Amino acid sequence: MGLELYLDLMSQPCRAVYIFCKKNGIPFQLRPVELLKGQHYTDSFAQVNPLRKVPALKDGDFTLAESVAILLYLSRKYKTPDHWYPQDLQARARVDEFLSWQHTALRSCCLRAMWQKMMFPVVLHQPVPQETLSSTLAELDSCLRLLEDKFLRDQNFLSGPQISVADLMAITELMHPVSAGCQVFESRPKLASWRRRVEAVVGEDLFQEAHAVVLKAKDTPPVDPALKEKFLHSLQSLLQ
Amino acid sequence: MGLELYLDLMSQPCRAVYIFCKKNGIPFQLRPVELLKGQHYTDSFAQVNPLRKVPALKDGDFTLAESVAILLYLSRKYKTPDHWYPQDLQARARVDEFLSWQHTALRSCCLRAMWQKMMFPVVLHQPVPQETLSSTLAELDSCLRLLEDKFLRDQNFLSGPQISVADLMAITELMHPVSAGCQVFESRPKLASWRRRVEAVVGEDLFQEAHAVVLKAKDTPPVDPALKEKFLHSLQSLLQ
Ligand SMILES: N[C@@H](CCC(=O)N[C@@H](CS)C(=O)NCC(=O)O)C(=O)O
Ligand SMILES: N[C@@H](CCC(=O)N[C@@H](CS)C(=O)NCC(=O)O)C(=O)O
Repeated sequence: MGLELYLDLMSQPCRAVYIFCKKNGIPFQLRPVELLKGQHYTDSFAQVNPLRKVPALKDGDFTLAESVAILLYLSRKYKTPDHWYPQDLQARARVDEFLSWQHTALRSCCLRAMWQKMMFPVVLHQPVPQETLSSTLAELDSCLRLLEDKFLRDQNFLSGPQISVADLMAITELMHPVSAGCQVFESRPKLASWRRRVEAVVGEDLFQEAHAVVLKAKDTPPVDPALKEKFLHSLQSLLQ
Repeated sequence: MGLELYLDLMSQPCRAVYIFCKKNGIPFQLRPVELLKGQHYTDSFAQVNPLRKVPALKDGDFTLAESVAILLYLSRKYKTPDHWYPQDLQARARVDEFLSWQHTALRSCCLRAMWQKMMFPVVLHQPVPQETLSSTLAELDSCLRLLEDKFLRDQNFLSGPQISVADLMAITELMHPVSAGCQVFESRPKLASWRRRVEAVVGEDLFQEAHAVVLKAKDTPPVDPALKEKFLHSLQSLLQ
């Protein structure tokens, strides 16, 4: 059995892995794991990823969790073009710096913004206090400022003149609040041109394909009531 | 000017970077940044790291934030022994997987456990609700279980038979709750033997030297009242 990827395109890091593979012609079997149907709670998925999160990779007997580790593994195994994860010492350090930073910064606020503005109120019919949402949006705003001022600066891409895995992780994050109707690019011309450059390299069709599910998330059919309770419990931290 | 490292040994990832450099004989100028004195709020530090966090690196004109990026940069620049960040595709992926996982898992609960059990009540004289602490300790417990069952398993070190940067990141995290009096190793013989192996490779003296400050943290002198207010505000998220 060749490469298998366990993905739900509702998830930002899954979209990054999906785009990376498609763009680089890396052949894989898609193993869909629908989080909103609780498919990550099955025993068979726990065999692949005991952390019970997507994305997850299976390559023969070898299993691997964590999007960053998966992207770097694939870039090495399939010897993808250098710009995705540059050999140059400083350029690579810039990519690593972003990949580390995003976990607790960009990812955290994009995820909460999207859930608080859309998933809780619209999909789960669970109202979110206005001050919670406001404080999350303020945090998103500071994060976007750091993304522009500390990472993008006057470069074409986050870690230099060419696209890298950092840009894929970033754009797929930002599309999360975008899907919920947040104005991420509207008053940020620098970030908006960066987005156009990333989309141009990825290709319009692949970009749309990867984001189709999340951009229609507000029309998600009602979630099974037992699962809804389970989600509301396990997603409490997204309400902060 | 050679390599400069901006560190506060109160910080877990700073201790990992410190141990890595000392152990590998990497020469550096230590630039102490005392977080409890607010030294990371200065303009001169923001020039080095606009994210205003430690650790931070300056190597000539090149500046770099994020402990993981710093460790990998140093391992490449100084060509440290392979085991720290193994070339082998799967072994390296295991290290990357841990380095990604820790940000939102191990790090988050070790930090909150230490602040809630010691820093808030003992150093800042700010009581922490019992149920907050209990729920953090329960989370720490699940994280330690994942550390044993998913990462350590029956290996000598987290990513295989030899020590890697993953072990340094993990041990320096775990010493955080230990410094606050949490029983991290007492009822976990597998984790306790792993700790002995890591300490043996690092060397007793270096291990003690790196942890001296945090192991005395409960005797921290009173924090300046204006700074205390600032901390209590910016550290709200550690009270969850
Ligand atoms: N740090 C991980 C995060 C993975 C993650 O949190 N995945 C989410 C979807 S975006 C998930 O599977 N959540 C299910 C759950 O936590 O129950 C990565 O980058 O791969
Ligand atoms: N992901 C970063 C985390 C750095 C970090 O949060 N450092 C803390 C000390 S452990 C800090 O500087 N905190 C100061 C602040 O946030 O104000 C890394 O691994 O380097």
